[in-house]
Amino acid sequence: MAGLLKEQIAILGVGCTSFGEHFTRGWGDLALDAAVEACEDAKVDMNDLQAAWVGSYRPWIAGERNTGSPLAEALGFVYKPITLVSNICATGLDTFRNACLAVASGMYDLVLAIGVEKMRDAGPRSLSLANRTDGHPLIGKGRTAPSFFASCAHRYFHEYGIGREPLARVAVKNHHNGTLNPKAHLQREITLEDVMKSPWVAEPLSILDSTANSDGAAAAIVTRADLARNVRPDYIRVAGLGLSVGTERNIFDPEFSFLSFKPTQEAARMAYQQAGVKSPRLEIDIAEVHDCFTITEIIDYEDLGFADPGTGWRLIEEGTTALGGKLPVNTDGGLKAFGHPLGASGLRMVYEVVKQLQEKAGPRQVNNARLGLCHTLGGPGALAAVTVLGRPD
Amino acid sequence: MAGLLKEQIAILGVGCTSFGEHFTRGWGDLALDAAVEACEDAKVDMNDLQAAWVGSYRPWIAGERNTGSPLAEALGFVYKPITLVSNICATGLDTFRNACLAVASGMYDLVLAIGVEKMRDAGPRSLSLANRTDGHPLIGKGRTAPSFFASCAHRYFHEYGIGREPLARVAVKNHHNGTLNPKAHLQREITLEDVMKSPWVAEPLSILDSTANSDGAAAAIVTRADLARNVRPDYIRVAGLGLSVGTERNIFDPEFSFLSFKPTQEAARMAYQQAGVKSPRLEIDIAEVHDCFTITEIIDYEDLGFADPGTGWRLIEEGTTALGGKLPVNTDGGLKAFGHPLGASGLRMVYEVVKQLQEKAGPRQVNNARLGLCHTLGGPGALAAVTVLGRPD
Repeated sequence: MAGLLKEQIAILGVGCTSFGEHFTRGWGDLALDAAVEACEDAKVDMNDLQAAWVGSYRPWIAGERNTGSPLAEALGFVYKPITLVSNICATGLDTFRNACLAVASGMYDLVLAIGVEKMRDAGPRSLSLANRTDGHPLIGKGRTAPSFFASCAHRYFHEYGIGREPLARVAVKNHHNGTLNPKAHLQREITLEDVMKSPWVAEPLSILDSTANSDGAAAAIVTRADLARNVRPDYIRVAGLGLSVGTERNIFDPEFSFLSFKPTQEAARMAYQQAGVKSPRLEIDIAEVHDCFTITEIIDYEDLGFADPGTGWRLIEEGTTALGGKLPVNTDGGLKAFGHPLGASGLRMVYEVVKQLQEKAGPRQVNNARLGLCHTLGGPGALAAVTVLGRPD
Repeated sequence: MAGLLKEQIAILGVGCTSFGEHFTRGWGDLALDAAVEACEDAKVDMNDLQAAWVGSYRPWIAGERNTGSPLAEALGFVYKPITLVSNICATGLDTFRNACLAVASGMYDLVLAIGVEKMRDAGPRSLSLANRTDGHPLIGKGRTAPSFFASCAHRYFHEYGIGREPLARVAVKNHHNGTLNPKAHLQREITLEDVMKSPWVAEPLSILDSTANSDGAAAAIVTRADLARNVRPDYIRVAGLGLSVGTERNIFDPEFSFLSFKPTQEAARMAYQQAGVKSPRLEIDIAEVHDCFTITEIIDYEDLGFADPGTGWRLIEEGTTALGGKLPVNTDGGLKAFGHPLGASGLRMVYEVVKQLQEKAGPRQVNNARLGLCHTLGGPGALAAVTVLGRPD
């Protein structure tokens, strides 16, 4: 029967660079740093890896090529299978998914999943994905990420009668978590007032409602659970791997509500089914979700089943998703404060959830988390990946 | 034990557009045509596909995005998992490989592998991959595909004492095969004299030593063999899936010979091991190999084990690889005459080998072929994929 992997898949080790403005580090330097840390964490020699999957949405921003070769060159990992995966902001989690499927297939025992992106030291037309929609019929009509998510915020305010404060509290929470994370891009507290007074990017979203664009890389070593067990008892189990790819034309659909994203719902449905999760809000202990803008995190809560439609903002108001709350979200600062190198973000989430499940998250450690979730959303809510990870059974 | 798939994987159907200058067909039109033909061949409803892998090296040349969404939009195949794979000229076969691994993992029963590329109706800087090496330190130093393979030809001539004639015979053979293929880009006979008098691209390679740049798409429906058996007795078995990714810095290596490509050798070693092929020149009945230039096909023969080093040219001189020979190569015209839309080429080869193994190749049918090979090579011999397909056991 389709729908379940033939093997229980495990994460044996993870690595992550600091995210930020790495003007002195190339694409390959960042990849190497993340891969070396993951190998050390997994206690494996890089030469023992049998294959790799690398996620990078725009490697050419860093002068690299859209193939596996830049990774081979960076790691000295040559003549082995390396696949390059690209899926906008879901690139990292889809890269991880393909690595897991490959191990479950029986072809490989021990592989690398890695995401790398340089966003900062590119020309002005490349920075911030300004030319992301080259060739798109709406490029001249202002359909950018901020304007799209601003429309979602407007609609949310209109439908559910809230104002900007709950959104601002998402930023305050994630910045606070970022201060507890030495790898985060933005390690400073901000106040509700800071957000409310911050300049508009696309009204009602301000600069402080928006994620940081960052350079960075993150990696995971993937193997079978029966092999991982012999290496470390605190390996992490891959419980669910959802991916749902829709259309960027969703915004033309008269039924598109601007209040929820079906790809998130579908990817979550797949991942929950595989993981046997029936009530996510009761069973998921921690989550890393796609907070490209503050409104997105609130919509994510609803799409992921953490809250009913129209009530996601209450999780922020009630502190449910803060550190110490019942379901802490973006404990590492999220895209908002950790930063967002597109291809790396999904694997950065995997890194954080693994550290939390292993009780190695330091000052931001959540108590006794057993099941964690990672979620990335790409385009105008066009595609999403959801990954569920757990402690060994 | 790693190295073998847990399930026997099968191809249930294939589709391929004509290759050429499709100025009136977009990226999505070509994808849809190939996918519909593959579904009809497999007798499956597109809605029954559970996931897709799409290979496209430069979708933005066609104004498309570097994600799974353009495929979702083209096929109306929405909210399902779609991964975009990129690996230069090995993109198509790597896309197919990932689809096969995914089915073997148990997660999916029935998936689509598709490759699509538009090469022709782009601006002058995009055509022919002129800007392929953006950011590469050698871009200003003439390190282009023709100049690189011209160096290989010079070296081959010097080491083995041949001239241009065997290379020209590769072009004559592949053009002849192309005349038997209604989907080929270049359907016309050429003579040895035509090649010898053709203008230089990079001496000693002429225009007629060089592949066509084309628009096109090709697709395969992948499933488990136990399921395929119930649908059609002439399903095709996936016997080996090799991928070897090296470095584009190989040309700086003092030991690099310009006479062979280690990624081809390694990818072939992997695929042969999986397929149980011990003597490829005796066991492989037909092959589609990467003939981006005529010299490349001759080097491929040696790297794939069809001939000893320095003797590949004899297979052409002796007619071994012609239709009617002992090991026909590029029966459909190859890159040379069928054309080369990068992301599609590997799956175009799968299409041809499947048709040959099913005895459905029309006027170019090879007698009783039971085991076939597909091979693509990317960059300056930097990476390669080898796929072995066979009739059911």
